[in-house]
Amino acid sequence: MSEGREGGPLVILAGAGRLPALLADELTRRGRSHRILAFRGFAERDVCRRADVVMDLLDVGRALTTMRDWGAAAVTLAGAVSRPSPAAALGAFAYFRNRHELDDILSRGDDHLLRGVVERLEARGFPVVGVRDIAPTLLAREGAYGRVRPDLEDQTSIAVGLELLRDLSPHDVGQATVVAAGRVTAIEGPEGTDRMLDRARRFSIRRPFGRPVVRAGVLVKAAKRGQDMRVDLPTIGPRTVENAARAGLQGIAIGAGSTLVLDEARAIEIADRLGLYLVGVPWPLERILA
Amino acid sequence: MSEGREGGPLVILAGAGRLPALLADELTRRGRSHRILAFRGFAERDVCRRADVVMDLLDVGRALTTMRDWGAAAVTLAGAVSRPSPAAALGAFAYFRNRHELDDILSRGDDHLLRGVVERLEARGFPVVGVRDIAPTLLAREGAYGRVRPDLEDQTSIAVGLELLRDLSPHDVGQATVVAAGRVTAIEGPEGTDRMLDRARRFSIRRPFGRPVVRAGVLVKAAKRGQDMRVDLPTIGPRTVENAARAGLQGIAIGAGSTLVLDEARAIEIADRLGLYLVGVPWPLERILA
Repeated sequence: MSEGREGGPLVILAGAGRLPALLADELTRRGRSHRILAFRGFAERDVCRRADVVMDLLDVGRALTTMRDWGAAAVTLAGAVSRPSPAAALGAFAYFRNRHELDDILSRGDDHLLRGVVERLEARGFPVVGVRDIAPTLLAREGAYGRVRPDLEDQTSIAVGLELLRDLSPHDVGQATVVAAGRVTAIEGPEGTDRMLDRARRFSIRRPFGRPVVRAGVLVKAAKRGQDMRVDLPTIGPRTVENAARAGLQGIAIGAGSTLVLDEARAIEIADRLGLYLVGVPWPLERILA
Repeated sequence: MSEGREGGPLVILAGAGRLPALLADELTRRGRSHRILAFRGFAERDVCRRADVVMDLLDVGRALTTMRDWGAAAVTLAGAVSRPSPAAALGAFAYFRNRHELDDILSRGDDHLLRGVVERLEARGFPVVGVRDIAPTLLAREGAYGRVRPDLEDQTSIAVGLELLRDLSPHDVGQATVVAAGRVTAIEGPEGTDRMLDRARRFSIRRPFGRPVVRAGVLVKAAKRGQDMRVDLPTIGPRTVENAARAGLQGIAIGAGSTLVLDEARAIEIADRLGLYLVGVPWPLERILA
């Protein structure tokens, strides 16, 4: 039944963002043979240029045929895909058991869509692998990344944020929160980190009586308990650092081992320049207590 | 030490919103003698008109003297007060132990400010009472308020929301959430319910493939565990119903016994007209399981 062939190339299914390119670079560095199958309208232009093939997100038949032709050993999903339009879904009709199955997937969130894709790929014999398996250096490590360190107040805020994320974990929402002076000022829903940072802004800038304005707060981001490490990992990068600074925060804390750090060098450079800290913290929390 | 006198009037410290007026109406109906001390810039115009005295929020000295003159039996805090400006804080200087104490209160959230006020009032001998003590009919009861009932999908969503709020409860944030089709689409931070509803909107309107647009989702709102029932109760009213409808929701579920329902009759009328349900649910959750 399995169509994944040992020794065959690893296929990157490329959605939006920097991850597909960074992953391809890392695989090249390691001398691991790979192919890029980019999704039109999602993958960035330079990814499409490097791609072996560019196709519609829901052209499932062609994707499977292509992977079989390549003798793919395994496949990895890289980069965000938002919900396809009903028109795009139409083309994928034949590849789902029935209309109800497709409808069920499309009427829910991206997570669901991605998990549906993973299940179907594996059912068709292609092992789905994640960043941890093929490019673990892209995942956050423990410790400070740049020159700045969180002060005592922010260390407290980080702990508050991690405890909140731990308790939110079973609810399949909220991989990020903002905490300022020990007080939670925003919890991420499906709107994403950037929008959450936008609204945290007005709570991060404190005006203590008789003293200058103080910027405060930290973005805390970590994977859910039971997170499928092959899809939709929490991610930060240079843009996250810029947005955190714009939101008046002092820094960013990320769960080590399960958060993607895109363009690490540039993220550190920006953090140092803007005076933000960027730290990897042990995650899940039990690791701190053990 | 106690300055609260039995038989003396109950003093309503009136901030923003409808609660002070509704409370005064209810006390009048019960024949309970009361006085209104309204805060300038916060209390609504009609409340200021009815008030026995209108003063600055932080004119603590005058407030205490006035309550002593009235021989107040107890005091209740009604309606929101946002953070006073540093200039306003200046006037209150003398009434706090020291600058640090005042600074500490002002640099945190409203909750903290209100809790600080309660502590100081009680320390000066005025018992602080809550809505549950003086006008329990303003609190949510169990069961459906209007004509509409939640369907099975929404009953699931309500349960999902209540479980989330239970787990968030120790974190002193989030008295409300929006759940659509069993999926959490927004969690309230200090931005408040109305802003949360705004951002929930785009997740509440589903477009299932080949079928008409479906509105989905419920606003679930309930008190924190350990909530001080004398300040800052979760509150809904006619405006909440209108905003929930605008956000594409099907209804509202509130924790019975600890959520304020302002202008109940008008809230029900609007809910019925817009086709939303409004239900009080047992809270805390242990009450359901017991």
